[in-house]
Amino acid sequence: MNTKKILAAYKRRGARIETRGRVKLTKKSDFSLWYTPGVGVAASYLAKHPGDARLMSVKKNSVAIISDGSAVLGLGNIGPYGALPVMEGKALIFKEMAGIDAWPIVLDCHEPDEIIAVVKAIAPAFGGINIEDIAAPKCFDIERRLIEALDIPVMHDDQHGTAIVVLAGLINAAKVVKKPLAKLKVVISGAGAAGTAVAKLLLAVGVRDIIVLDRAGALYQGRPKLSGEKAALAKLTNPRKVKGSLRDALLGADVLIGVSGSGLAKAADVRTMAQGAIVLALANPVPEILPEEAKRGGAVVIATGRSDFPNQVNNALVFPGIFRGALDRGVLSITQATKLRAAKALAALVAHPTAAKIIPDLLDPRVVTAIAKSVR
Amino acid sequence: MNTKKILAAYKRRGARIETRGRVKLTKKSDFSLWYTPGVGVAASYLAKHPGDARLMSVKKNSVAIISDGSAVLGLGNIGPYGALPVMEGKALIFKEMAGIDAWPIVLDCHEPDEIIAVVKAIAPAFGGINIEDIAAPKCFDIERRLIEALDIPVMHDDQHGTAIVVLAGLINAAKVVKKPLAKLKVVISGAGAAGTAVAKLLLAVGVRDIIVLDRAGALYQGRPKLSGEKAALAKLTNPRKVKGSLRDALLGADVLIGVSGSGLAKAADVRTMAQGAIVLALANPVPEILPEEAKRGGAVVIATGRSDFPNQVNNALVFPGIFRGALDRGVLSITQATKLRAAKALAALVAHPTAAKIIPDLLDPRVVTAIAKSVR
Repeated sequence: MNTKKILAAYKRRGARIETRGRVKLTKKSDFSLWYTPGVGVAASYLAKHPGDARLMSVKKNSVAIISDGSAVLGLGNIGPYGALPVMEGKALIFKEMAGIDAWPIVLDCHEPDEIIAVVKAIAPAFGGINIEDIAAPKCFDIERRLIEALDIPVMHDDQHGTAIVVLAGLINAAKVVKKPLAKLKVVISGAGAAGTAVAKLLLAVGVRDIIVLDRAGALYQGRPKLSGEKAALAKLTNPRKVKGSLRDALLGADVLIGVSGSGLAKAADVRTMAQGAIVLALANPVPEILPEEAKRGGAVVIATGRSDFPNQVNNALVFPGIFRGALDRGVLSITQATKLRAAKALAALVAHPTAAKIIPDLLDPRVVTAIAKSVR
Repeated sequence: MNTKKILAAYKRRGARIETRGRVKLTKKSDFSLWYTPGVGVAASYLAKHPGDARLMSVKKNSVAIISDGSAVLGLGNIGPYGALPVMEGKALIFKEMAGIDAWPIVLDCHEPDEIIAVVKAIAPAFGGINIEDIAAPKCFDIERRLIEALDIPVMHDDQHGTAIVVLAGLINAAKVVKKPLAKLKVVISGAGAAGTAVAKLLLAVGVRDIIVLDRAGALYQGRPKLSGEKAALAKLTNPRKVKGSLRDALLGADVLIGVSGSGLAKAADVRTMAQGAIVLALANPVPEILPEEAKRGGAVVIATGRSDFPNQVNNALVFPGIFRGALDRGVLSITQATKLRAAKALAALVAHPTAAKIIPDLLDPRVVTAIAKSVR
């Protein structure tokens, strides 16, 4: 479908989600019970027992999808209105996949302190907070401080959803090319939210040879002007101290993970990788390298984040199940152990991985349940 | 239904509203269109044309119901969790009555500057802002500043919804007791959000003899320590300079409007009113005087805000239609002229007013349309 037709479909459809009553208001007695005077009983009760909002209000099953639009898909800083269709699409997926009542909250403010204040203020009506498409490095601080401040689960999906689905895909891709996971030489193009979280989760599962690149090239310990999360990442990764560009890093690598948001790899780059190369080009809507181009470069396993190519490695496989599990079990914290369990559970749903099938389909009904079970 | 049974019903039901997809996600191509890559087209487009969010996102039909829980029903300052069931009930009414997708946003912050900052920040995903149950006098400042700051309709329902429905009820009640509306001697018990807005709308329709009381008694020009909205109101009302208590104000009055939130009138008080007394005791869930008590005092027309007595003068008759009209017509400002039109339209739906029927039923399907038409 071309751009014009897609836009026409969105304009024709208007909103993609709506609300619906879960009780009827068809008789006077319905109003007496569900509005006044009945609602006064619930209001007085919750004022005294706020914890029971989880049992008897929207808080039971609701998630706020929060974005300031500062790092939307691979499109960059396009503001709250640019972010709105994406967050609304996520709300649609939350409902259709996991039965969760999510609402898009796009923010017309951008300072971390402001974003944190707003999310803390609106938290009482929500059972969980999904942070989305907020730029690095502020996303790290925002997530950390919200987790500390709130008594509901908070997850920055660009980090953890992506890390889980990438690890799941990589577990199966390694099987396809018959290489041990921990021995893979991995290049991650992109040192933002996703790249950082992917690197950390791969380290947690035993992968040692990881090179992460930002726009200035490979991160390595001692690179001038590195600070914060990137400096920390440089300490944990790049044991061979490789310097230079993506081309330099890819030499002999087994895996290229693109989470950078811009088209920057060519067939010639892929050709310098080891035999049996794995390319996960996950930027949306435009992958870092298109599947046919990666194939020309000799890649064996190729995945994107999109629905219109095989092997859709997209966090839509993850976030519905993570929040389903967290809401159902009252889990506040999405730990590294939870992420590992989730990735393994997701990978295990593909009984016989092949180059064209390393990850379950988004429509696979087992996905949400498998992920949700790993949250505990 | 007793308190225990009501609470059990709320706990059994959990949430009273949920979300629902307006498009299907059953095929790969659905994901391609409504999520990635398709959503990137909508995101890029709205980043450049934010005004079109009204056409192609939830903003088209959504209202945020905002409360900090500082003045919930007649229950007082019971905080965001106390407010949640009420706002959720309003969201249910918005949908069931007017097809509007409203979401409860209860705030864990209470300073006007904070509340304003939060509402401005979250406004992009909403087509309208319904402020609710925020205490006077801060509600006046908050509403005024949000109307100035935002390009979507903002209405504090406790003020304007109440004023409209009270005027509608009073138009018909005056017919029942055969007194001209403008000549009525009106006593308003409560000088908060509702009392202030009711007084101003009655003045706008030509009523001259209005006495407004707060906890310290009648407001009159020159009363010590009056300031802000109350001082302004004292200048506009009480032409006979009546001082003292509710009892003093009621002497010879035609109408008692209770918007005070506490049970304070007795049959003996009503007995001092003029013949053909009209009593609108609107506090929820507990009216200022129960219908049987008002009747014992000789009141001819008696109304409450509740669903379980006759004559339910409740702003649920008003807010769905006001926002329906504002969203459909792109109206930003709910003017005094709109409020007058809405009140007259609502009153006109009762062709032959009687003591037991001064206002349309909440279930009357003509109500929303009639109110919506008055918004222009």
